[in-house]
Amino acid sequence: MKCTFVEVAPESDFSIYNLPYGVYSTSSSAPQVGVAIGEYVLCMSMLSKLGLFAEINGLDAQEIFSKPQLNEFMALGRPIWRQVRQRLQEFLSDTSHPVRKLIQNTNEVSALQSQVQMHLPAQIGDYTDFYASREHATNVGMMFRGKDNALMPNWTHLPVGYHGRASSVVVSGTSLHRPNGQRRPDPTQPPVFGPSARLDYELEMAFFIGPSNDLGSPLTIEQAEERIFGMVLMNDWSARDIQAWEYVPLGPFLGKSFGTSISPWVVTMDALEPFRVMQPAQDPEPLPYLRSSCSTSLDARAGYDINLNVHIKPHEDDQYHLLTRSNLKYMYWSLRQQLVHHAINGCSMRSGDLCGTGTISGPTEESFGSMLELSWSGKNPISLGSSKAQRTFIQDNDTIRITGFCQGDGYRVGFGECIGTILPAVKLDWVN
Amino acid sequence: MKCTFVEVAPESDFSIYNLPYGVYSTSSSAPQVGVAIGEYVLCMSMLSKLGLFAEINGLDAQEIFSKPQLNEFMALGRPIWRQVRQRLQEFLSDTSHPVRKLIQNTNEVSALQSQVQMHLPAQIGDYTDFYASREHATNVGMMFRGKDNALMPNWTHLPVGYHGRASSVVVSGTSLHRPNGQRRPDPTQPPVFGPSARLDYELEMAFFIGPSNDLGSPLTIEQAEERIFGMVLMNDWSARDIQAWEYVPLGPFLGKSFGTSISPWVVTMDALEPFRVMQPAQDPEPLPYLRSSCSTSLDARAGYDINLNVHIKPHEDDQYHLLTRSNLKYMYWSLRQQLVHHAINGCSMRSGDLCGTGTISGPTEESFGSMLELSWSGKNPISLGSSKAQRTFIQDNDTIRITGFCQGDGYRVGFGECIGTILPAVKLDWVN
Repeated sequence: MKCTFVEVAPESDFSIYNLPYGVYSTSSSAPQVGVAIGEYVLCMSMLSKLGLFAEINGLDAQEIFSKPQLNEFMALGRPIWRQVRQRLQEFLSDTSHPVRKLIQNTNEVSALQSQVQMHLPAQIGDYTDFYASREHATNVGMMFRGKDNALMPNWTHLPVGYHGRASSVVVSGTSLHRPNGQRRPDPTQPPVFGPSARLDYELEMAFFIGPSNDLGSPLTIEQAEERIFGMVLMNDWSARDIQAWEYVPLGPFLGKSFGTSISPWVVTMDALEPFRVMQPAQDPEPLPYLRSSCSTSLDARAGYDINLNVHIKPHEDDQYHLLTRSNLKYMYWSLRQQLVHHAINGCSMRSGDLCGTGTISGPTEESFGSMLELSWSGKNPISLGSSKAQRTFIQDNDTIRITGFCQGDGYRVGFGECIGTILPAVKLDWVN
Repeated sequence: MKCTFVEVAPESDFSIYNLPYGVYSTSSSAPQVGVAIGEYVLCMSMLSKLGLFAEINGLDAQEIFSKPQLNEFMALGRPIWRQVRQRLQEFLSDTSHPVRKLIQNTNEVSALQSQVQMHLPAQIGDYTDFYASREHATNVGMMFRGKDNALMPNWTHLPVGYHGRASSVVVSGTSLHRPNGQRRPDPTQPPVFGPSARLDYELEMAFFIGPSNDLGSPLTIEQAEERIFGMVLMNDWSARDIQAWEYVPLGPFLGKSFGTSISPWVVTMDALEPFRVMQPAQDPEPLPYLRSSCSTSLDARAGYDINLNVHIKPHEDDQYHLLTRSNLKYMYWSLRQQLVHHAINGCSMRSGDLCGTGTISGPTEESFGSMLELSWSGKNPISLGSSKAQRTFIQDNDTIRITGFCQGDGYRVGFGECIGTILPAVKLDWVN
């Protein structure tokens, strides 16, 4: 299948096999739903008006694609998502498609991505962050609690997670101020107040919830699998010194809630389907509610082979330098295990809710997904390729960029980028 | 000042000095904003239509009071809240008020509370729970970590808090199923799955955020004080066994997110103003950003004298029995300290966001705000007054009721009740 509507380079993240959803606006139009193809964004409400999604049962396409967020579309469920995907692929590939004949010029239904502004793809009701990479949990545990207490006893039995702050989730491209806060650099002295001195990124991915479940109604693992709409890249910015001081006993709070960046394009699970792989072997065997082995309807391959890279553009130069090269396939707990666990107590998961995977570190040092791990808590400065700059943590005016893609045969299913620059801390004259 | 519009008993929670806001519906009308007075609820959109709130600058009363949540009203800020309060008091007390003359019968603008349905007062974007009672933190710390590690080193330096789950916040009267989950009753054995065996209540209060702050814009302590709209009672239901197993290192998660109940009427800070008291002395002195001593515009009395009671109706009989008698004034960290800390890293607090205080335990055993503390982790069964029943934790079909009020001179400013019944766990045949 080939896109004949606009040109798509083989190395483009947005091939006809991808078709991720996002929310965009132009100088003349309010935020609405778009789909990325090559360097373009398709206007879904205009395509709806031309009848492309006519007679899809249960889809009021013009209404739903005119919204400034994807929540309502996410709520519709996989059968409808698949029909829309199929119609888009037919439209883009078939030169004699009836809707193509209604269009004189591609710009009637599309715009260059470089000329639109992207927004958060959904109104995020709740945001949860898991801790699902064994390598990351082990690395961090060693630094925070020593080698003997690195992996807590519960870690191999359940996907550990915590509630995050939805109000501080921002779309890629949003700059963030270095947070102020309490930290205690010298444990023999009282805490001090000021800008975080150990600001870090965390390489994560995150998934959006499709149809919701009511409070009190847990999901089966089969239902969990069907209710994941799609994925984005995520940078879970972390102020390690604030976090280390505040996190006992109730977990991360202000060390995280100053900002969390996500990429704007939501790649659907249908687009990721060909890139399924086995997740790492689980020992001990998880409790039955977390197991897929008893189910005949589930694909045993619960992992996804998604190449992930993190680059830094240090304030000293104008080049990006590689920091991390990792892959989602390293993640110990699968997406569906995370979701089924989250809802097993009856917790309601609503359409548009966001779940982060936690930092995705792999087995080798190059795959460590945070500066905390790469510099081993600041002990070993990180060299940045051709740059003279070194880093233990992020400095003011550094930019961090996460990219990710699945490599198909001659095409890609990619995520675009999740980018953010750290601005100097806000001056708070009134607290000194 | 006396309400002459409807009769209000001296022991009523809803005197003319209170006037709390809620969202209600009737068999014939959709959810909209109401105000409680005596046994009645005032229809705010109808009063708007009659011109009671005319010419309040910046308030489109008919629009804002017809909404099914208070978020837009909360966003307007204290000067407007105060004008609305004043107009209501004039209307209710003055028999010759011009709007009174437009009304033939009280039921044109009011309904009996017993005949309406209450809803969540706001669309809660984010819900945070603090841990601001020293007595509670010490009690729980002793049980979870032993006497020497009871209060963590950070506790006296900052109001410890964590992000909670907004989707599981429910209005008083909503029954909840006992959650299923992982727990490890025998630490020498692998974890097991099933209904929580240590289900608890937590006596809390919570406050709603008024005007929001942008991401990256911390609040001063003066701003924090002005941005609290009002308070409700809260029961932070807790599955102690699930919590104990899951909470390291990232904090409470599924042990809490199966349900959190709040009372439907939001009592404004203006109504609570006469009941301010000094908060407990703070030693060590907090860092400047958490201090009011440097400010001339702040009332030094940052605490509130609010009597709080918890009763249980055990499934064995039909009577309520007292469990806890506490008071918000015991709380170590004030509301404004909680809010200023929450936003100090730049975290955006949005109108309608909810912040819980954490369990409000006092110095004596009768004031312990949870069964975990009252039964000392299940060791000492709690006698229930005249009932033959005893409890260490909540049993199926038990009902927990929280009430609270400020006692004025011949009147009360009360909160109504926060009530909930625990139903048996959902049967999950597919996981065994």
